Amino acid sequence: MKQNKIGHYPFVVEPFQEDVTGHLSTTVLGNLLLRCANLQAGSMGYGYRDMIKYDSVWVLARLQVEMDLMPTTHEPYNVHTWFYNCYRQFSERHYRLTNDQGVEIGRATTVWSLINVHTRDAIDLTNFNDGHMNTCIVDEQLTIEKPLRVRVKAPTPARSLEARFSDLDINGHVNSIRYIAHALDLFDKPFHDKHHLHRYEISFSAESFCGDRLHLYHDALDELTHHIEIRVQHNDESTEEVACRIRFVFTPR
Amino acid sequence: MKQNKIGHYPFVVEPFQEDVTGHLSTTVLGNLLLRCANLQAGSMGYGYRDMIKYDSVWVLARLQVEMDLMPTTHEPYNVHTWFYNCYRQFSERHYRLTNDQGVEIGRATTVWSLINVHTRDAIDLTNFNDGHMNTCIVDEQLTIEKPLRVRVKAPTPARSLEARFSDLDINGHVNSIRYIAHALDLFDKPFHDKHHLHRYEISFSAESFCGDRLHLYHDALDELTHHIEIRVQHNDESTEEVACRIRFVFTPR
Repeated sequence: MKQNKIGHYPFVVEPFQEDVTGHLSTTVLGNLLLRCANLQAGSMGYGYRDMIKYDSVWVLARLQVEMDLMPTTHEPYNVHTWFYNCYRQFSERHYRLTNDQGVEIGRATTVWSLINVHTRDAIDLTNFNDGHMNTCIVDEQLTIEKPLRVRVKAPTPARSLEARFSDLDINGHVNSIRYIAHALDLFDKPFHDKHHLHRYEISFSAESFCGDRLHLYHDALDELTHHIEIRVQHNDESTEEVACRIRFVFTPR
Repeated sequence: MKQNKIGHYPFVVEPFQEDVTGHLSTTVLGNLLLRCANLQAGSMGYGYRDMIKYDSVWVLARLQVEMDLMPTTHEPYNVHTWFYNCYRQFSERHYRLTNDQGVEIGRATTVWSLINVHTRDAIDLTNFNDGHMNTCIVDEQLTIEKPLRVRVKAPTPARSLEARFSDLDINGHVNSIRYIAHALDLFDKPFHDKHHLHRYEISFSAESFCGDRLHLYHDALDELTHHIEIRVQHNDESTEEVACRIRFVFTPR
């Protein structure tokens, strides 16, 4: 019964899905995790297509991913994911990643809110659909640290860029995973060659749109730990607001 | 017999594979076409993994893609691809894209050279492996225009950017399809909302690497036809050389 509530998705690292180090790209995996969320939620009746009938849409509030290693070209890996908890304004999803021997190679959590597409208000998940969502929960634990609070002190951006067409998702915002790509681009190739991204956390605050300026503020806590705050300056405004906050923890390769 | 030499790859447009207009993203499809090339070549003994045994690697010289329409979320589509011709220094691959009723919705061609990884010299394909590659050819015609010669006259770049980590592929170059993404980013969201990219052609000249500056020179021949030349300025040099030339033909939506 519990097994039916856990989605299992096998993948293989395909050519053109690697980064320059030859490992599955962090951003490819990030988008796959979001896709698996949708597939598994869909199997329970809560995918994007299902929610549109309720005039509502899932919004990603937080994502953390921890990978002990990243598979390389042609290596198989599996994503296992389940609803872990349901609060009034948030639902929490857990992921376990395994290799083809079933050994855990990584883990992830996502936090989502369900909003009404017209009012943009969060929907009470505990009462939604007669409380049925609670029956989808699986009490399967993960060993993963809680995300930390990220506050960046850098007074000036390390990089600024304009959000463009290729940054956008179907909703017209900058795609969640594109922020990770832009933040990883703060590090040069020699750094990536020598460091594995063991863990990242991202929490989302404001949306950004095509033409917005994105400013990346970067605090290096030490060689391996980095906090990045991406602030958005909307098209015709001079003020900036926080779009997302990111924490990277690297390990030496 | 002919059927065995044509690779058939069914896909569905997955959430997070769309662009802002809700259609399969041009860049997602571009990378899938390259992946299908590798899969089909692999089924004949000529994939990346096979060629490494000969100390050689396929290099994409040219790509053209023509899509009558782009599928939208959850829509199935099929990629059919085959070796179409083999010359001394180039092999040509054809693609037909169909919907789930088998109706042709697009077509593509790629031109590849096989180079020795040490000398970077092109390998004579007509004699390679005792001329066996010729037996893989399928004489299946496509109705697609020949690519045009692109020469860009714009004296200054419309945009310049630095090639970064997220632009790179496993070989350490800027990924072929990333040039298309950067070129599409020259057009704003309202333009993409109103125009479908009916056809693109790209030919590759020089490779670019992390830290290189990319300059996008842009000639708009008319509202729908655009030529873009991306010139690369390597890390510490003042001169520019052509990395690739692109032709876009849009149609009104």
